[in-house]
Amino acid sequence: MLRRETCWAFAWLVALLITSVVFAADANSIDPLPSWNEGATKSAITTFVKNATTEGSKAFVPTADRIATFDNDGTLWCEQPMYFQMMFAFDRIKETAGKHPDWKNEQPFKAVLDNNLAEFGQTGQKGLLEVIATTHAGMTVEQFHNTVRQWMHTAKHPRFDRPYDQLIYQPMHELLVYLRANGFMTFIVSGGGVEFMRPWVPQAYGIPPQQVVGSSGVVKFEMREGTPVLVKEPKVEFIDDGPGKPVGINRFIGKQPVMAFGNSDGDLEMLQWTTEGERDRGMPRFGLIVHHTDAEREYAYDRDSKIGRLDKAWDEALRKGWTVVDMKKDWKVIFPPESAN
Amino acid sequence: MLRRETCWAFAWLVALLITSVVFAADANSIDPLPSWNEGATKSAITTFVKNATTEGSKAFVPTADRIATFDNDGTLWCEQPMYFQMMFAFDRIKETAGKHPDWKNEQPFKAVLDNNLAEFGQTGQKGLLEVIATTHAGMTVEQFHNTVRQWMHTAKHPRFDRPYDQLIYQPMHELLVYLRANGFMTFIVSGGGVEFMRPWVPQAYGIPPQQVVGSSGVVKFEMREGTPVLVKEPKVEFIDDGPGKPVGINRFIGKQPVMAFGNSDGDLEMLQWTTEGERDRGMPRFGLIVHHTDAEREYAYDRDSKIGRLDKAWDEALRKGWTVVDMKKDWKVIFPPESAN
Repeated sequence: MLRRETCWAFAWLVALLITSVVFAADANSIDPLPSWNEGATKSAITTFVKNATTEGSKAFVPTADRIATFDNDGTLWCEQPMYFQMMFAFDRIKETAGKHPDWKNEQPFKAVLDNNLAEFGQTGQKGLLEVIATTHAGMTVEQFHNTVRQWMHTAKHPRFDRPYDQLIYQPMHELLVYLRANGFMTFIVSGGGVEFMRPWVPQAYGIPPQQVVGSSGVVKFEMREGTPVLVKEPKVEFIDDGPGKPVGINRFIGKQPVMAFGNSDGDLEMLQWTTEGERDRGMPRFGLIVHHTDAEREYAYDRDSKIGRLDKAWDEALRKGWTVVDMKKDWKVIFPPESAN
Repeated sequence: MLRRETCWAFAWLVALLITSVVFAADANSIDPLPSWNEGATKSAITTFVKNATTEGSKAFVPTADRIATFDNDGTLWCEQPMYFQMMFAFDRIKETAGKHPDWKNEQPFKAVLDNNLAEFGQTGQKGLLEVIATTHAGMTVEQFHNTVRQWMHTAKHPRFDRPYDQLIYQPMHELLVYLRANGFMTFIVSGGGVEFMRPWVPQAYGIPPQQVVGSSGVVKFEMREGTPVLVKEPKVEFIDDGPGKPVGINRFIGKQPVMAFGNSDGDLEMLQWTTEGERDRGMPRFGLIVHHTDAEREYAYDRDSKIGRLDKAWDEALRKGWTVVDMKKDWKVIFPPESAN
């Protein structure tokens, strides 16, 4: 025989258990952004998200409108001493040089094989496009993905001696997870190549391939021995950078984001479009710039950098009150712990 | 005082209740495709989906790979007597003719204003592109969307006397809902204009704007009096038809679908890519063609039709064993009930 009280006590315990689990998952009790130091930057983010998800709040954002777009190079992962996609292209040139003896005397390949970045720089836009065309075309999309995967498993960053996909920013990774937990869809909107990103982005960031917007080359449908394939051609189709970013957002997402994250002048128009774009239904908007200020743990660069130059977008950030991350001050760590990989 | 038995009986009742709710939601007890007649077509679909969602089944498909792509014109909604987007373009020409007195004597506008389809046909590709450029460009994306919405609220189909977005196929709508309930992502991959579809597709099909792939014109980012806008230019950027469909799928989705649905030769390559594309990890694949066989309730057309011609894709369907819907035989109803709208 059980006393009525015992039965109720049991039910009460179960209720308590459920409640405690729910509260443990609440943003108030567990810090969703543990790698961010407390301060104005962190609270600008969490305040926006709290308001965006609080029904009845003036800054509430309906779930269907919770679109957040992220630049990749310099915003979600490191971009120094050179865009990692260029590191990949250079490695590919070196790996395949055996089949192209003429490259030893022919620019821009000679400069790449000699590891002479200054000389490569002199070959300009033409040299750059030739290296991209040589390493990114003449194969199927599937074959290219496999090459990228292979490289990601073997290549290492010259300074940090870690695979490139471990040089993502831990605080930004936490931000992606935090936003998704609050009903946001997270998109990458990068000047980098879409086919270069898709093979590793899902695992690194938890972002599926259909949420990756990037630059692209022309791709052609062909039947090869009865099998349909998609072949990458050596021709630029779309540059998802600068004014191309809002165009890419419109093309792929079809909706204005309410949050946008970048780090350089190439992100200026995406941030303008997100924070001031034509649509005005009283939708709250959020713009953020990552400022690289930490030469010790990563790199320090802004107005004079050839890669990831932050000049006009910085001025605009100050003028418009976008949130600016000071990496040195705002981030407890830069990269994920080595043991985690 | 309560007996121990009473306490357990209570728990048992709760368990029973939960079980019955779960079973009520099971596909066995409620027909998820009530507008489809029983038969080979319907069971080809439900068998594929049942296997795809049964862990341990040979034809199981992991959730991340459950991508289904749908053509729009003639597959999800009616496309006769002319693509509805052309109906829209013609209506726009007529509405704005007052500002263009010269159109009365100038092709292709004269033919449109005279409702002379034969004459319009003689202006060929050039006439078509001119009408599209005139009605689909020279405004911001936002303004164009508003024009489409306005038209959708007021225009009616000449034969059925209903708004165009009520002429979606009820059985296909059920299929979209059924697939999503089984963890599939549903995408539109249409030759129609992406900006023409996005304003009404979310409500009509439950498909969000970022899952709409279509043809597009060039869009340009501009600052107008300090406000960033996206302007539609009179220049074709991408034709998402025929061999363009697998290219569009690769560009926007970045993954091969496991199911594809079409109705015409413009869908041939999408179906080939889906059912026989390069990837082969033993992934099950499903192709389906809607054959318009019902002149009484809708239209009957195939090999000789100028719009939605089904010739090569039909032969390939028969050769490859794709599922072919016979609208007259397989569908209980064509359109949603009028009262539902």
